[in-house]
Amino acid sequence: MSNIPKIVILGAGYGGILTAQRLQKELKYNEADVTLVNRHDYHYITTHLHMPAAGTDTIEHSRVPISKLIDEFKIDLVKSTVKEIRVQEKKVILEDGLLTYDYLVIGLGGEPETFGIRGMKEHAMTIRSINSVRMIREHVEYQFALYKNDRRESRLNFVVGGAGFSGIEFVAELADRIPVLCREFDVDPNRVNIYNVEAAPTALPGFDPELVEYAMDVLKRKGVTFRIGVPIKECLPDGVIVGEGEKIQAQTIVWTGGIRGNHIIEDAGFEVMRGRVKVDEFLRAPGYDHIFIIGDNSLFFNPEGRPYPPTAQIAMQQGVTCARNVVAAIRRRQPHKFVFSNKGTVASLGKGEAVAVVGGRKMKGWTAAQLKKIVDMRYLFIIGGIPLVLKKGRFF
Amino acid sequence: MSNIPKIVILGAGYGGILTAQRLQKELKYNEADVTLVNRHDYHYITTHLHMPAAGTDTIEHSRVPISKLIDEFKIDLVKSTVKEIRVQEKKVILEDGLLTYDYLVIGLGGEPETFGIRGMKEHAMTIRSINSVRMIREHVEYQFALYKNDRRESRLNFVVGGAGFSGIEFVAELADRIPVLCREFDVDPNRVNIYNVEAAPTALPGFDPELVEYAMDVLKRKGVTFRIGVPIKECLPDGVIVGEGEKIQAQTIVWTGGIRGNHIIEDAGFEVMRGRVKVDEFLRAPGYDHIFIIGDNSLFFNPEGRPYPPTAQIAMQQGVTCARNVVAAIRRRQPHKFVFSNKGTVASLGKGEAVAVVGGRKMKGWTAAQLKKIVDMRYLFIIGGIPLVLKKGRFF
Repeated sequence: MSNIPKIVILGAGYGGILTAQRLQKELKYNEADVTLVNRHDYHYITTHLHMPAAGTDTIEHSRVPISKLIDEFKIDLVKSTVKEIRVQEKKVILEDGLLTYDYLVIGLGGEPETFGIRGMKEHAMTIRSINSVRMIREHVEYQFALYKNDRRESRLNFVVGGAGFSGIEFVAELADRIPVLCREFDVDPNRVNIYNVEAAPTALPGFDPELVEYAMDVLKRKGVTFRIGVPIKECLPDGVIVGEGEKIQAQTIVWTGGIRGNHIIEDAGFEVMRGRVKVDEFLRAPGYDHIFIIGDNSLFFNPEGRPYPPTAQIAMQQGVTCARNVVAAIRRRQPHKFVFSNKGTVASLGKGEAVAVVGGRKMKGWTAAQLKKIVDMRYLFIIGGIPLVLKKGRFF
Repeated sequence: MSNIPKIVILGAGYGGILTAQRLQKELKYNEADVTLVNRHDYHYITTHLHMPAAGTDTIEHSRVPISKLIDEFKIDLVKSTVKEIRVQEKKVILEDGLLTYDYLVIGLGGEPETFGIRGMKEHAMTIRSINSVRMIREHVEYQFALYKNDRRESRLNFVVGGAGFSGIEFVAELADRIPVLCREFDVDPNRVNIYNVEAAPTALPGFDPELVEYAMDVLKRKGVTFRIGVPIKECLPDGVIVGEGEKIQAQTIVWTGGIRGNHIIEDAGFEVMRGRVKVDEFLRAPGYDHIFIIGDNSLFFNPEGRPYPPTAQIAMQQGVTCARNVVAAIRRRQPHKFVFSNKGTVASLGKGEAVAVVGGRKMKGWTAAQLKKIVDMRYLFIIGGIPLVLKKGRFF
């Protein structure tokens, strides 16, 4: 047994990858052992998943082998699923093993939040991983193939629950994809319906109202039917019950309505709100100065006392601060406060269309769509440099 | 009402298309009205359907708009489904209309023959149309997507019932396709099983035994598991019961085991054997010298007194003779006897492999695969000339 401190990072999402990369840069030789645990041997670019989910882009643009992102001489990569965190014993139980740690970084990512809507968990698909995304794409295509054999109109109805950023971005891609599928399967596009159902009184809640209107106009022109201010009451195998009991028949229901923390966090005994832990200003779990929680699993409040929404942007920034604070802890120095710096928000609306707010400036249409690409490429650059941009970037 | 005789052709398959093309060539101006009825506005190349069914080629290489094959100034094209033939009234009832005729050519194509195997009709897919083929392709892909989410091993088992020409050709394409799907969905190819189950004591019954052995060796190397001399007793939603009660678990079952005639022929009151009518030497239905039956709906005996198997080759040759005999009847001349001229047989075994017997000569491997392409192109040339060969031909 060595005396070298053991750092274990759970999850290679935005937060985990950034933490790992910064640790590998900042730690000196033999200063610590770092192990990164992830369910898959690839990192996926969650903000891009709406495209392969709709089938408008390949899976390969949405994921990167983790071995390309970290230096395996410096960081051990363990491909396994985390089953349990035993905070008293400082142990992580894996599907097929066990890890002990001195410092733990939890970036396991969130889970879909269905707000207790009956049947949602059972009958709706969610955009949360490469596997779930391939499933949505194949499910949608399969409905077209089945329709040509059984002529059930509900196969051509697609319900997307939630008109937040994920919902809107997916709906836009789906609207771009439908005409292609109609040609491929000889289906009249007029028979197809895309419903975007949102309980809140507006699409893209919290976003600039002028841009929300622009976004909805773009999507309506692409054939999307909005049901805003209309809650989904129940999800069935063949549709959803909305509002006052109206049924929308549909064989495809995709739920984008919410994200909560991870059940593993709850099971570990942390105090949680919707599965997320309110971390201190240094991103530490309350009561544990050697456990850091970042990304969708953490709850961090803005100066006005409201929690920041879980985004890739905040997860990445948390990863950077988290790595600094782990190093500080090892070196017995003062930790750094996490301060979120909002770089702006872009929502893609499908091919050639987007809305964005950057530095208080509103953008829409082609300009915003170019900005979206730049944001995507900037991320690829941050995690993998020029080679990754060239390999995974979408230039057109 | 004109006195011009009315010719109605039912079905634009191999037989119907050839009949229509020859009639349009041989008939003089105003000598007859010709109407071609088909369910779709395209002709499909049935012998090619095993490829898009497996997903190794696009649908578009397997079909041609009928308007490209016939001269619409000379032949009326009616896109409709035939519901009933009233031979006493000389009428054809369509889904959405009615046609009267003086001469009728029936080339409606066959239907899958399940030999009364329980559950086969309900749970197995068949390779019989563009729609059924898209369904098989999507169903197979969907199993991979579902497997990645529920890990049911039976999703990776594929059962093909029948090891005749259709079965072998489809199995070969599927074996070529599986490695591609495994890469796309991150599935270990060793987990996938393709079972080809045949009740007869050999694969490719009636074919040269040496070539049968070669074909099976090629396919075994591609990962196909043969169960020859093993009947399917029952087809279930999640597998098949074979032999003495053994169950093969599989979410995908494709039945290629047989073809019978069309129920519309039976309903019309003709005497049938497995839905097919034993026509006279001029291809006429017994008792009706103005009704011709060709292709999978007809039963024609070779000089040794055994029926020819239903193939594209015989259907095409029948189409040519049928057209001549319709013209002869109109001109009150002697009809011509149908004589089948066997041009040989080729079975594709996937990329770069095939077996063939042509003029008594056996061929296998690359040479036979090239021959297969030449046969395909020859057909495109016959029905559509050089432009169609260039558009639909597979040159590589």
